[in-house]
Amino acid sequence: MAITARFLAGIELGGTRCRCVAGTGPDDIEAEEEVPTRDPASTLSALARVLQRWQDDLGPLAALGLAAFGPMELRRDSPRYGCLGATPKAGWGGVDLRGFFAQRFEMPIGLTTDVIGAALAEGRWGAARGLADYAYVTVGTGIGAGLIVGGRPLLGCHHPELGHIRIARLPTDVWPGNCPFHADCVEGLASGPAIEERTGRRAADVPPDDPAWDAVAHTLAQLATVLLLATGPRRILMGGGVMSGQPHLFPRIRRGLEESVAGYFDLDDLTGGVDGFIVPPALGARAGQLGGLAVAAAAARHTKP
Amino acid sequence: MAITARFLAGIELGGTRCRCVAGTGPDDIEAEEEVPTRDPASTLSALARVLQRWQDDLGPLAALGLAAFGPMELRRDSPRYGCLGATPKAGWGGVDLRGFFAQRFEMPIGLTTDVIGAALAEGRWGAARGLADYAYVTVGTGIGAGLIVGGRPLLGCHHPELGHIRIARLPTDVWPGNCPFHADCVEGLASGPAIEERTGRRAADVPPDDPAWDAVAHTLAQLATVLLLATGPRRILMGGGVMSGQPHLFPRIRRGLEESVAGYFDLDDLTGGVDGFIVPPALGARAGQLGGLAVAAAAARHTKP
Repeated sequence: MAITARFLAGIELGGTRCRCVAGTGPDDIEAEEEVPTRDPASTLSALARVLQRWQDDLGPLAALGLAAFGPMELRRDSPRYGCLGATPKAGWGGVDLRGFFAQRFEMPIGLTTDVIGAALAEGRWGAARGLADYAYVTVGTGIGAGLIVGGRPLLGCHHPELGHIRIARLPTDVWPGNCPFHADCVEGLASGPAIEERTGRRAADVPPDDPAWDAVAHTLAQLATVLLLATGPRRILMGGGVMSGQPHLFPRIRRGLEESVAGYFDLDDLTGGVDGFIVPPALGARAGQLGGLAVAAAAARHTKP
Repeated sequence: MAITARFLAGIELGGTRCRCVAGTGPDDIEAEEEVPTRDPASTLSALARVLQRWQDDLGPLAALGLAAFGPMELRRDSPRYGCLGATPKAGWGGVDLRGFFAQRFEMPIGLTTDVIGAALAEGRWGAARGLADYAYVTVGTGIGAGLIVGGRPLLGCHHPELGHIRIARLPTDVWPGNCPFHADCVEGLASGPAIEERTGRRAADVPPDDPAWDAVAHTLAQLATVLLLATGPRRILMGGGVMSGQPHLFPRIRRGLEESVAGYFDLDDLTGGVDGFIVPPALGARAGQLGGLAVAAAAARHTKP
């Protein structure tokens, strides 16, 4: 008699630690474990041991979902599908994440970037429930966006890299930016490290009246405007350490969006009002882990007989 | 016995004229007709007469596709689905295009914007054949983009309005721009009327060595960069009167894209090389009409029993 696999496994592969979870959703977590992110060989082996132990204890797992720092090759027609790209994280460039687990486990494996994973988790359990078209933006060590379009992650020749667009800058903001590729792209102007370099303090310690926030809010409002005009999300969730630590940014970004749309759209009609359009995520620090679980759920669904 | 409808009808509703076509594709056109665009009542009545005549002559039509100037409400859950939005075209704001034809004809009716229609036609018969993810950009009286994602037009809370994003400007270009809403958005810097206002000449008459083209090429390269980083198209088609009249823009836009990506992506790997990534459309002036036909084909397919 076949044993029905009850639990999904999710892994968030982060820059400093990997968070593993087994369960079916935020209210049904059977096991959790953390593994420090070191070199690829020892980190991945440790993760495999966690999964093996869970299989021994909980029975067969229905699917594995990986939500990992990128850039990552997500084109299924690529020979490098599931491999990391040119990441600055030493030793990890080119690592075949999917292949490693596929060689060791027979369950379906889904994978995506951490930010797309968080977007999927917010759609399934959080602040984007019921929406088929929305965006999740993280503002932290880097700035990234996961776009869900028609209920699925948007993926063309690459996953979105909206943190690296350049925008129309605040005329009074002449700081050169710190992105090693693009200087004053969104990430180079408004990420945590950029704020730290602008102000000489950790982003969390910069008071709300510091003029640096004008430039940061303007930059993020421009990003929101581009998102609205490019892909028409029904809602934009903005999370990550900078946003959660500086909630005054939300009203400033909403006003900046209104100013830059400048009456071209009826924002109330399109978005139901900006206050509900640009919002914090609901899953907070759990979005990453739950992202792995959401990806696992999708992988399980797509391979159902 | 049921009569099988053989032909589709497509209508491109343009600013100065409407082009109607009956057939199944560019190599199988049974009838074509033009109607001048005047006030809504007389224009729509004339279009209905064309369709009625075709039904009388050719037998029942399988579907009608409308590709119209926007902005247009394309959210199916909106009570204004199929209505024009706040267009500057006198008398046309709010007109219920879909309702007009649905009241008079029993066939399935598809509708979209002119630029999304052209994108669909290029995907079906032109320079984007075989691609599920691509963009069509028109540079003419206005600047617009149709995005196809996963084989379908991208539509969230609104169809894309990428002509109205603001970009990082060429530092030497200080012309204020002429968009009544956003001054120096992409359309305000690089559309036909913007070029005419910059140079005092019609875009078609401005020689390739005029410095205005540096600003135009930079602006369009920035738009291409945003498209690549936001939605990852596999190809970007650039059409419209400005592009077809000034083919020297293509290599300049490609170089501008490379410069602004600045090594962050391996463009050759992602795009197969920029020369094949930013290209002219293949259907030329017929893309609009054929857009209507492509929309009709999709409407017929979606309502097949």
